[in-house]
Amino acid sequence: MRIAALEDREAIRELIARYGPLADAGDCAGAAALWTEDGIYEVGGFGSYQGRAAIQALLEGESHQGLIHGGAAHVLSPPVIDLDGDCAIAHTYSIVFRKCGDNWEAHRVSANLWQLVRTDEGWKVSRRVNRSLDGSEEARALNSGLARLSFNSACITKP
Amino acid sequence: MRIAALEDREAIRELIARYGPLADAGDCAGAAALWTEDGIYEVGGFGSYQGRAAIQALLEGESHQGLIHGGAAHVLSPPVIDLDGDCAIAHTYSIVFRKCGDNWEAHRVSANLWQLVRTDEGWKVSRRVNRSLDGSEEARALNSGLARLSFNSACITKP
Amino acid sequence: MRIAALEDREAIRELIARYGPLADAGDCAGAAALWTEDGIYEVGGFGSYQGRAAIQALLEGESHQGLIHGGAAHVLSPPVIDLDGDCAIAHTYSIVFRKCGDNWEAHRVSANLWQLVRTDEGWKVSRRVNRSLDGSEEARALNSGLARLSFNSACITKP
Repeated sequence: MRIAALEDREAIRELIARYGPLADAGDCAGAAALWTEDGIYEVGGFGSYQGRAAIQALLEGESHQGLIHGGAAHVLSPPVIDLDGDCAIAHTYSIVFRKCGDNWEAHRVSANLWQLVRTDEGWKVSRRVNRSLDGSEEARALNSGLARLSFNSACITKP
Repeated sequence: MRIAALEDREAIRELIARYGPLADAGDCAGAAALWTEDGIYEVGGFGSYQGRAAIQALLEGESHQGLIHGGAAHVLSPPVIDLDGDCAIAHTYSIVFRKCGDNWEAHRVSANLWQLVRTDEGWKVSRRVNRSLDGSEEARALNSGLARLSFNSACITKP
Repeated sequence: MRIAALEDREAIRELIARYGPLADAGDCAGAAALWTEDGIYEVGGFGSYQGRAAIQALLEGESHQGLIHGGAAHVLSPPVIDLDGDCAIAHTYSIVFRKCGDNWEAHRVSANLWQLVRTDEGWKVSRRVNRSLDGSEEARALNSGLARLSFNSACITKP
């Protein structure tokens, strides 16, 4: 039991950490496969993408391809993870650095809420919500509630 | 024993990772509760704050509130953790990103030394020292001594 | 077995996390000791450095010393780790922040591939390859192949 919880946390940490390198390598199918088949990626200011094909298409699109061909890094912070059996919630920051002259600029800094679920293929993302930290209440709210050490919702795979 | 050490490291990693989201959500009491009742937060260039009420007041103050309402992220790097029974020391970087026009600027980049202690409520911060990495000897010194794989001080809850 | 794998991952995470604070503290011998005796550090745009003495000399050189005395942080992202017995591969981002006026600039943002090996002194770096994420194919390629959950090369201590 105790080992299983450590392994679950490790697997979730690993899953989240894989997003950036896959996205920046242009491995769009690999990045999309971090989600469940019908998983959701809600990107504030862009839209909501459901299903691996839609998420892959988002990454194959002009906006993401322009970023990575110009020089970019999608860096994720160490996550806060709340495990609840076969479900979990994680919070991370994401920073997109973009090459700009001799340096890189922090082009997008966001709060991210991840809903995760244990599947036959291991832990997968059922929903990721990303909100740009531009001072809006909506993005700050995504980070709230973290003082609770657990959550007691049922597994949520649809918003 | 081996599992307990892994769990301790996981709990400390989690404790530290919670600081940013709590601070950025404006959950000032939640952020302060990461410390022990009489815990200390020394912020280079600002001051030294002892006790949860003082730390909460710092975060409720104009400077922090201005940051988070303008759009900010307090991002902490993966920690280096040295466990010693019921005490521990951790080192992290912290980066405060602040929305500025279309991008975010790295408004403050600091070295952080965390002294941690096991309490009845789990691991808590007894002291956090934050020094801006502006080239001063003081900030660089905070990072030194990391080649040692352990430390043998007694638990330190007061500076 | 399961505990040993968790411990290995923890040790590798710790090893990588120590690089930044050691490098920024100016503990050049301590930073070089993260590598094996004949370990390699390939820094895109700079050169390839083999052996602890060469890596220490690199960090004692004008370029690195200028950075840390002006105010700098070498921040590493949470790693993706693929364990294979006594060998491992890890991927991280690294961001070098440099004080510039009132703020810090992201002076270098890189993809890093780490080859690690278990030694009598614990896990060590046998090779680290760092490539600036400037849009070149070479840097993006360093991040590819992460969809695979393992790798089946023999231990590689030489390129």
